[in-house]
Order: sequence, then structure tokens, then C-alpha cells
Amino acid sequence: MNVEPLRWEDGALLVLDQRALPGEERWIRCETAEQVAGCIRTLAVRGAPAIGIAAAYAMALAASRGEDLEAAAAMLRATRPTAVNLGWALDRALDAGDGGLLALARQVHADQLDADRRLARLGAERFEPGDRALTHCNAGALATGGYGTAGGVLRAAWEAGRLTEVWVDETRPLLQGARLTAWELRQAGIPHRVVTDSAAGSLLAAGAVDRIVVGADRIAANGDVANKIGTYSLAVLAARHGVPFYVAAPVSTIDRATPTGASIPIEERDAEEIAPGAFNPAFDVTPADLVGAIFTEAGVLEPPYEEAIRNVASR
Amino acid sequence: MNVEPLRWEDGALLVLDQRALPGEERWIRCETAEQVAGCIRTLAVRGAPAIGIAAAYAMALAASRGEDLEAAAAMLRATRPTAVNLGWALDRALDAGDGGLLALARQVHADQLDADRRLARLGAERFEPGDRALTHCNAGALATGGYGTAGGVLRAAWEAGRLTEVWVDETRPLLQGARLTAWELRQAGIPHRVVTDSAAGSLLAAGAVDRIVVGADRIAANGDVANKIGTYSLAVLAARHGVPFYVAAPVSTIDRATPTGASIPIEERDAEEIAPGAFNPAFDVTPADLVGAIFTEAGVLEPPYEEAIRNVASR
Repeated sequence: MNVEPLRWEDGALLVLDQRALPGEERWIRCETAEQVAGCIRTLAVRGAPAIGIAAAYAMALAASRGEDLEAAAAMLRATRPTAVNLGWALDRALDAGDGGLLALARQVHADQLDADRRLARLGAERFEPGDRALTHCNAGALATGGYGTAGGVLRAAWEAGRLTEVWVDETRPLLQGARLTAWELRQAGIPHRVVTDSAAGSLLAAGAVDRIVVGADRIAANGDVANKIGTYSLAVLAARHGVPFYVAAPVSTIDRATPTGASIPIEERDAEEIAPGAFNPAFDVTPADLVGAIFTEAGVLEPPYEEAIRNVASR
Repeated sequence: MNVEPLRWEDGALLVLDQRALPGEERWIRCETAEQVAGCIRTLAVRGAPAIGIAAAYAMALAASRGEDLEAAAAMLRATRPTAVNLGWALDRALDAGDGGLLALARQVHADQLDADRRLARLGAERFEPGDRALTHCNAGALATGGYGTAGGVLRAAWEAGRLTEVWVDETRPLLQGARLTAWELRQAGIPHRVVTDSAAGSLLAAGAVDRIVVGADRIAANGDVANKIGTYSLAVLAARHGVPFYVAAPVSTIDRATPTGASIPIEERDAEEIAPGAFNPAFDVTPADLVGAIFTEAGVLEPPYEEAIRNVASR
């Protein structure tokens, strides 16, 4: 079975509340762009591709209510700074203008699902029978168009008989790995075990991980990757142990206007997600030299990334 | 002010229940070795030096009740496999025999407090004014004789004007960093911020950490260090960023009978500390080549550790 994070129904956007999963399947009905923005801000919907889709639907809602589109886009853009798919979807909506915004949102949604499936198939080709993978956070169906980027690669590898087990980082502070990725893998029947984020080092040292695959919130023009906090540590550990480190993301996650990771804005979230007075950056940057390959729907990108990204983005 | 984890009073061992901190200061009165074993097993008292002291008092309780000492030692030894201080204290008690076991326990306790203070002073000498340190788990007063190993180094460095701020890994799954280390630092008036365990990489990449200092549960004869899960990742990241990585531990944590880290038994704890079906190793092993120095009460050990450890252990 498949649970998609977003559904358009009777003139409203239904958002599956990811804060309540896996305990409860609760849907939030959004009839205004403001309500969608609230869902993005509070992580009821999260994952770079999914918030891009949600933003496209939000623009359609704004247009249907005769709201000012520039103002709606500005409000949505301010919800979360790191994921570039948000701005990408909003720019497409502003370019399209008042007319066919619902059709555009449906297209963005369908395209993402299609991209998920394509990049997943390409990524799975890098796996070999018997492989054990590790992933961080959630880049599965819930985070995307409904199939998954990193999570989609794992599904495709499993279906192709090239995966035996997945280690799932619990992913502090909001436990998207333990709550969401483990839930998706259970539904897909893929053997998995949750570990603390800091256990990855000893798993790699023990030779228990053959590949690491993660999603991305923004990829700079040079191939630097912003993703959930902790991704960088995994990449450094993977390099030390000679384990391939892959990123899976649609082309819409690539931001050619951001030259390197140093220019990617990193969202700092509320200390209370961790402890009073805590420092809570939500993302980190993995330098391109630690990334073995980037799986996109337009092909597998490999170093040197500047050139590969220039080619894929100019199609 | 100073809260010690263990106190002998009216013929019983009082154990400060570290599971209830920082919310509540609750003491458990142990009148039998069995009760002390329960406190060690359930982490009411934890930290390698502290459980060594607790075990010594437990043997005194067993002797005072006329229990079989060999049996009591076997029961205590089975509580937690990784920390070598436990076995070290039990062996000392068995060698001493029935007679002066309370005096021995008091001596083990006083010696540890003395060792804490000495190694802390030696470690602090490696700090420089303006330094920002990062630590993992809790190796402070609660984990030791009442002053701290890694935590003692931080206190001594702070008092010497060589420390400005401490980053505290929250330390999943039981949050000993966020709960215990942050509490101790607050009491000591040392500026600090809690971060998720997986944020260390981005802090190091941002140049926000000048030194990392951690405790140890067992140090092998070649200098490999077993410590709380996640320590190894920190050491790998420190090496990549050229940041000194220090271990602070009493000589009793060195196990010359264990040739390398590969022979150190790693405790696997209940999955439920993380999530159903999770894999939960409590410790990992940091290879000696990633350890910049080991602060002990007998001096600062530096590579090559085999020789340094042979010298210190044979005194």
C-alpha cells in the first residue's frame, strides 16, 4: 500500500499530518494558502519535494480565493528557508499567473511522482544483491510525490533483489527516521532496524553497511548538498570506511543560483525541539567531494558535479 | 556546589538516582549487594568510575551480611560488561577478603575523587584561553568520584580561564548529556549549549569547536577506547577538521589484559530505549590513532600508547 502525503479533494488540499504518524493517520483540510503555510511551518508536511508540491497547491488555493499571488508566494516562501523546491514551485506558479494554477499544481505533483520512480530505478542499479543500506531522516513517499527519493531507491533496490536490510537512523530531534521511514519500510515489507544517529560509525566500522543513501533539501551548483542535520557526519564516516555515499533528489532540488554549500541558508529551529537553550540547526552541508553520486530523474550525476549539474539543469 | 552520585550513610549506600535527574533529586538506599547491582543494571548509577566505586561498597555490604563474596562479585560483574572499572574494583575486593571491605570501598572512592582532580588539572593545561569544547554523554561528577573526568577537565579549564563555552551532545538514547552534563555545567556556571549528537559535524565544519574531550569505559592496552556510542564518530570528525580529541579517565579504566578494542565486549541494551526492534549498542570503540591524548591521574599519555600504557600500568 501507498500513503501519499498530499491529496487534492473537493477544492481543498488534504495534508497527512506527519507529526501524528505512525500512531495516527490524521488529515488536515486546507482551504487557504495560509493554512498550507501553517502545515509547512509546523512540519505537518515536510520533505523538500513534498513542500514544493504543497506550495503549488497553496498558490492554486490563493488564486481561487482571489488573493494577491505575490503576497501569498512571499508568505509561503518564508516558511522554511533551506529546501529550494519551495521557491522553485512558487516561481513556477508566479510565472504561470492566475489562470491554470490548479492544473500546474497537479502537474508538479505528477511530475514529482514520475521523477521519484525514475531516479529510484536508476539508483537501484548501483546496488548489488546482499547489500545492506543505511539511510537518515525520511526521504520516502511521505517526503515526496508519493514514492520517495532515497526511500524510493531503497524500494526499487528491494524489489530488484539487491537489498537485504536497511539501517534507519532515528534522526533527532523529531525522529523522522524512527517514526516515518521505519513505518514506510514496514509497510513495504523491507527488513530494517532503527539505530541512534550516533551508532552509524560503529555499524560502518563493523562492516555492516554497504551503501548510504539520503535525500536532499538543496544541492548547490558545485554539488554540495544540504540535507537533514547529521548527513555530513555520515558522509565523513562513509569516506573513512570506503562505503559509497549517495544522494537521491529530483532536478528541482538543484539550485544553480547557489554556487556552493556555503551560500545555502540553514534553518535554525526552536531549541525546545531538543532542550531549553539548545542550538538546533535543522540541516548541514555535505561537500561535493564526499558525494559518490547524485541520483536524479534525468540521470545519475557523478563528479565533477559542476559540469554534470550544468548539463542536467540546462536541458 | 557538588552533588556526588554515591554516599555511605548509616551502614548503607545511598545512590543518587540519575534516571530522575535533572527533574528530581531522589536517593535510593541500598542495604544489600543485590540492590546495588539493580542500581547499576538500571543506570540509576552509571559512568565507569562511579560503578566501580558502587561495586566496592556493594562488596562491603555483602561481607557485612555474611554473604558469599565470590557469588556477590559474580552477580555484580554480570550487570554491565563494558566498563572495566567494575571488574577492577571487584577483583580488589576479592583480594582483600572479608575483613576491611568498607575501608577498601572508602579508599576506592577517595582515590577516584583524587584521581579526578589530578587528571582534570593535567587535562586543563592543554586548553588555551578562548577555547570552545565539545563533550559527549556525561563524564562529570555524577559519573565518577564526585568531580569528573572529562567533566572535571572542563571545570578545571573553566576555573583556569581557558574555556569559554561547552557544546553538549544530548547523547541518545538516554540523554545523559542533555540531562546530566548540562545540569552539572549549569551548577558550575559554565556557559553551554545542548545540540543533537548529529550536529557535531556541522559545528566542527563551522570552526566552532576547538577541543573535544570525552570519558572512557575501557581503554585497551594499545590505546583503543570504548566509550558511549557516538564517540567514534566524533573522533573521525575531529581528525578531519584537525581538532584535538582527548580522552580523560583514571588508570583503573585501562585494561592491560585487553589487547585491542576488538576484544572489548560491547553492551547491547534494550531496543525499547530507542524504538521497537531497534539495535541498541551502548558503546563504540575509537581506535588509538584518533586519540590525541589520554589524561590520567598518573600523567598525560600520548602516542605511541602501547608504550605509554605499559609504563603507567606497571607503576
